[in-house]
Amino acid sequence: MREYNFGGGMPDPESFPVEGLLDAAQEVLPELGRTLVGYPDPRGYSELRDVMVKRFHRKNGVTLPIERFALTCGSMQAINLVTQYFVQPGDTVVTEEYTYSGTLGCLRRYGANIVGVPTDDDGMNMDMLEEKLRDLQGQNIKPKFIYTIASNQNPTGTNMSVPRRERLISLAREYELLIVEDDCYADLHFEGDPPPPCIYKLADFSNVIYIGSFSKILGPGVRLGYVSASEELLTQILSLKIDGGTSNLAAYIVGRFLKNKLWEHLETVNRIIKAKRDAVMEVLAHYSPEAFEWWTRPTGGLFIWIKLPDKTDTPRLWKMLDERGVRLAPGRAFHSQGQEVPFLRIAFGYPTLADIHEGVGVIAECVQKSCTV
Amino acid sequence: MREYNFGGGMPDPESFPVEGLLDAAQEVLPELGRTLVGYPDPRGYSELRDVMVKRFHRKNGVTLPIERFALTCGSMQAINLVTQYFVQPGDTVVTEEYTYSGTLGCLRRYGANIVGVPTDDDGMNMDMLEEKLRDLQGQNIKPKFIYTIASNQNPTGTNMSVPRRERLISLAREYELLIVEDDCYADLHFEGDPPPPCIYKLADFSNVIYIGSFSKILGPGVRLGYVSASEELLTQILSLKIDGGTSNLAAYIVGRFLKNKLWEHLETVNRIIKAKRDAVMEVLAHYSPEAFEWWTRPTGGLFIWIKLPDKTDTPRLWKMLDERGVRLAPGRAFHSQGQEVPFLRIAFGYPTLADIHEGVGVIAECVQKSCTV
Repeated sequence: MREYNFGGGMPDPESFPVEGLLDAAQEVLPELGRTLVGYPDPRGYSELRDVMVKRFHRKNGVTLPIERFALTCGSMQAINLVTQYFVQPGDTVVTEEYTYSGTLGCLRRYGANIVGVPTDDDGMNMDMLEEKLRDLQGQNIKPKFIYTIASNQNPTGTNMSVPRRERLISLAREYELLIVEDDCYADLHFEGDPPPPCIYKLADFSNVIYIGSFSKILGPGVRLGYVSASEELLTQILSLKIDGGTSNLAAYIVGRFLKNKLWEHLETVNRIIKAKRDAVMEVLAHYSPEAFEWWTRPTGGLFIWIKLPDKTDTPRLWKMLDERGVRLAPGRAFHSQGQEVPFLRIAFGYPTLADIHEGVGVIAECVQKSCTV
Repeated sequence: MREYNFGGGMPDPESFPVEGLLDAAQEVLPELGRTLVGYPDPRGYSELRDVMVKRFHRKNGVTLPIERFALTCGSMQAINLVTQYFVQPGDTVVTEEYTYSGTLGCLRRYGANIVGVPTDDDGMNMDMLEEKLRDLQGQNIKPKFIYTIASNQNPTGTNMSVPRRERLISLAREYELLIVEDDCYADLHFEGDPPPPCIYKLADFSNVIYIGSFSKILGPGVRLGYVSASEELLTQILSLKIDGGTSNLAAYIVGRFLKNKLWEHLETVNRIIKAKRDAVMEVLAHYSPEAFEWWTRPTGGLFIWIKLPDKTDTPRLWKMLDERGVRLAPGRAFHSQGQEVPFLRIAFGYPTLADIHEGVGVIAECVQKSCTV
């Protein structure tokens, strides 16, 4: 049976730089290979951290010292360290109403109460955030942090506007809350204005933990992400990174590749995923409004968020999709409370254009078949 | 100033297989590189886990199913996961009186009370273990686990005898305790009989968490270790491995290399470290008993444990060694209670033969100068 994989937030496999990584390995291993008999720097290989410094400068106009960046095993390890450090069972964490399933799983593993804040095309609704914070304060509850994916959000694909970013920062200050900004998708940008400067920068690097990743521009299989924060916060969360350091073998190769090719590689990746997004848009429109009520039109990232008709029998739909070889994530995977909701997320980085044309059609057919009369 | 690095448990850099890893990369990346756009298997890359299965069989005569092995970021992540899962502040953990400083640091980070059991040439003293367990039981304290490095112990270089391994298992059963066996050094064996079968096997794979590593036979910079246990225990500790998986980029390259070359590579490594051990032995004897009272003569592993004269002013010694460019770990780093003790550990894998001849002489000189009259 043909498979259609719209499931994970994976980049395009055809543009994965196998040759580029091999060239990098051939350059860097004779030079540094023997140092693999030693432990990595506790904050990770410097050449790769220098790539982050330069990237951050190019996107946000500020050169941070290299010590402010620490490598992690993907962004997931950074999210885990932050959660382990700050969250005890019963503690509260605020997130967007729909957010990254990996973060939700981690928060739940540590027993967090998750409070979701509704979003629209401009990101988290700040009036509603303020209301939630006031309510929580009334109950004497101080959230441990506000977790946000402000740029090219997962799963909705939206960007938080600058005024909202600023209001988020001012609310966090008013309520003395930490912000955890997951900026994993900011480099995937293929249309119109780039996402606004990150919250970390807008907040003048204070009380924000900034998390990034090379998983989305290269691949999750390399397991390289990073975290940046004030020295105090970074020291706190790294005190729980008891893993002997992040793989230098992976970091040497990826570091050398990105040092030479980051911007060139991003151009390639973004050109390809734009074409894929366009293809999904086209098929969605074709089957609208019967199968798809509305959807987001991302200008970056890897995800399209789709509203299904309310009359969709969603459990039946997921089963049907599975039987038809369609892999995708149901809306509830991203819902802060895990509710069954008439939404689905299409991750469009991995499938081919042909998969998209055919597969999104299969989804449409299944949605229509699973609508109750 | 010339540096003498007897500090970390690092293998020989000259025998680090740079070419072998490059060949492996050239073989495996064209084949599997594109799959790096996906997440690793939650238990890690199968080819590398298959190497563990085969290695375990060759050393212990039993073929375990591949599902019983999970990759980690070095053995350190495995130790961390076990500690995080089982230890709450104030809980008790039993270890050898002198043991791996990384484990001690991790246990302390999670607030464990560490109870050290004296050892001799045959490993942990079982009468004293029994006494401690009885004492603890009298205080209504049930240790969370007994952590042991039974083979080529760090820092003492000793092997626990088979009768003691069996008695350890029977005591653990009597007191219903989990054993955590850190078997990181078992593959480094260069003289006489190999270490006995691991406790994990002798205990019939029950109530033992077995931890291994490729750091000691390849290098800590690759950050690849592993853990094996019953499905129940493995599921428990992996529930805290929230890192998106262990790097496939590193595991593909190392997995392919070891699949082809493990035993050949071990022969090379062991031949080289035997020569280094012999060199250390020779210099130690030359300066005995004035500088060095007694020392262990390891038949495997990377460490020699040296008793200094009781009249050594150890704080003065560590300062003097530092000033003379000698990097090594003071005895207290391995002491379960962190006590200042007249011992030092020489890690002999990394330094050259010339470093050893000259550097151990410098140590002897410093010891003699720092002895109080």
